[in-house]
Amino acid sequence: MEDDKDTLRILVATDCHLGYMEKDEIRRFDSFEAFEEICSLAKQKEVDFVLLGGDLFHENKPSRSTLVKTIEILRRYCLNDLPVKFQVVSDQTVNFPNRFGHVNYEDPHFNVGLPVFTIHGNHDDPAGVDNLSAIDILSACNLVNYFGKMDLGGSGVGQIAVHPVLVKKGTTTVALYGLGNIRDERLNRMFQTPHSVQWMRPESQEGLSVSDWFNILVLHQNRIKTNPKSAINEHFLPRFLDFVVWGHEHECLIDPQEVPGMGFHITQPGSSVATSLIDGEAKPKHVLLLEIKGNQYRPNKIPLMTVRPFEYAEVCHSLLHAYISK
Amino acid sequence: MEDDKDTLRILVATDCHLGYMEKDEIRRFDSFEAFEEICSLAKQKEVDFVLLGGDLFHENKPSRSTLVKTIEILRRYCLNDLPVKFQVVSDQTVNFPNRFGHVNYEDPHFNVGLPVFTIHGNHDDPAGVDNLSAIDILSACNLVNYFGKMDLGGSGVGQIAVHPVLVKKGTTTVALYGLGNIRDERLNRMFQTPHSVQWMRPESQEGLSVSDWFNILVLHQNRIKTNPKSAINEHFLPRFLDFVVWGHEHECLIDPQEVPGMGFHITQPGSSVATSLIDGEAKPKHVLLLEIKGNQYRPNKIPLMTVRPFEYAEVCHSLLHAYISK
Repeated sequence: MEDDKDTLRILVATDCHLGYMEKDEIRRFDSFEAFEEICSLAKQKEVDFVLLGGDLFHENKPSRSTLVKTIEILRRYCLNDLPVKFQVVSDQTVNFPNRFGHVNYEDPHFNVGLPVFTIHGNHDDPAGVDNLSAIDILSACNLVNYFGKMDLGGSGVGQIAVHPVLVKKGTTTVALYGLGNIRDERLNRMFQTPHSVQWMRPESQEGLSVSDWFNILVLHQNRIKTNPKSAINEHFLPRFLDFVVWGHEHECLIDPQEVPGMGFHITQPGSSVATSLIDGEAKPKHVLLLEIKGNQYRPNKIPLMTVRPFEYAEVCHSLLHAYISK
Repeated sequence: MEDDKDTLRILVATDCHLGYMEKDEIRRFDSFEAFEEICSLAKQKEVDFVLLGGDLFHENKPSRSTLVKTIEILRRYCLNDLPVKFQVVSDQTVNFPNRFGHVNYEDPHFNVGLPVFTIHGNHDDPAGVDNLSAIDILSACNLVNYFGKMDLGGSGVGQIAVHPVLVKKGTTTVALYGLGNIRDERLNRMFQTPHSVQWMRPESQEGLSVSDWFNILVLHQNRIKTNPKSAINEHFLPRFLDFVVWGHEHECLIDPQEVPGMGFHITQPGSSVATSLIDGEAKPKHVLLLEIKGNQYRPNKIPLMTVRPFEYAEVCHSLLHAYISK
């Protein structure tokens, strides 16, 4: 169904951790090479857009070098003359509350041919008096569409409203919910407080009823933990969802898994760069090409080739190097 | 001569120090307001481009907030559908050695209507393994044309070649030399070592001889010091220059002053925000609208209105606030 004018094609990836190990002689380019491979796959597969699940940056305050490299990659892959074949029909000022308030490919002064949508993770979370994330820098540059940033207000439980980005391509309509990382304990408390998390459903319009939308949620939280307070229980998510993209967990469990009794599947793409020496990270890395037509979807997993395996010699070298330079 | 197709019109400013006092309750927006006023004047006066003399940023590693605010201002004023009426005829890959290697308004994926050219200062100097300045971030975003970054090599005296950006508008031809900040002691040593600083002159072309170019230098160094080693002597500059823009010195001495025996005039625009409690900073701030036609130029000084004077009460408040928050 690749060339179908009613099929929305999304490349899903997460946890690129750009700038990870940027001072390591051997690994310094790894995160960028993997991200470039993702962008290159998006181009090659001619997807409608890229969807990222947070932790695009490894650091809350990325270095000049990391910012420059990231901007260069996005500029080279996202700016071109290719037509964007879908529409964002929700209130864009609510979805993308930056100074410009619109989806990036609609800006008349940029040629965006490959839109990227992303939430923030715990590494690139918003902070400071302005509550800005490093992703806000890319958003100010019009290189990404940053959504799912909640105004949590003070220190109380608070109330959030999750407004979906409503995407239309031909007859296919997708409501894309984004929930940038919130501390697990806090989000758990909110999920257990009535009316604390409001999932805004699309209003009926132009012959579309609320059930006609394919509902995707992208979030960035701990998923599996022995201590249930420091992870999010899948059963707290609303049942109207059709598909969930789970960021933060680095192990690649990309094949969508059904959550019994909930009516949705979860894909956990895993990070595009290995950041810890655990078994889960030693497995091959993948991204997901998600094709959606009406209420049907087809997941296609694509292996990442540039990802460096944790080889014993290299780990030894890194550790030795870190030791010597102390 | 404002509307003349042969008249190049440049708005000259320097030392905007974006992010200066960004944590101060009262002064946090001052640097941005002054910079926005400069951009707004450029728009209002319909200049061909803006020329900045370094220290656009106050910090070598600007905060997320400063980067976002800066990008927003540049995006709002520099991206539009206005035609750019001059050409850069020099080798752009030499002038602008970033990943893209061209002047920003020629990029087919951006609508740049107001180009900005800037060198770096001592506050936003290039550093780190990649020798990147914070201005490289803006250059990667295609929002400014960063020139005058020299490859100084190792720790020796080194040799630099200053390649001008060659600008043509109608019959007017300008060779714009940029020399980003180099430590005064080092630059002094270089100026006193034969062949250490090479000023590349335009080659004769299309009926133009080398003497047909109006030669501008923009630099960012100490100008007046009791110790001559830690400042640059105006007499070290080459005599072929016609006009010098001196950044770094914050006092506004914007009316071009002739340097006896050297054949050029110097304008010292001064900072657009006051950063120290010296007499020189207490004077009104100005920017320069420089109009060039052939070998003639006309300097027009324009006062900046948003610049906050150092008022006694505010200084007391700032000091008190700083003291309390310790």
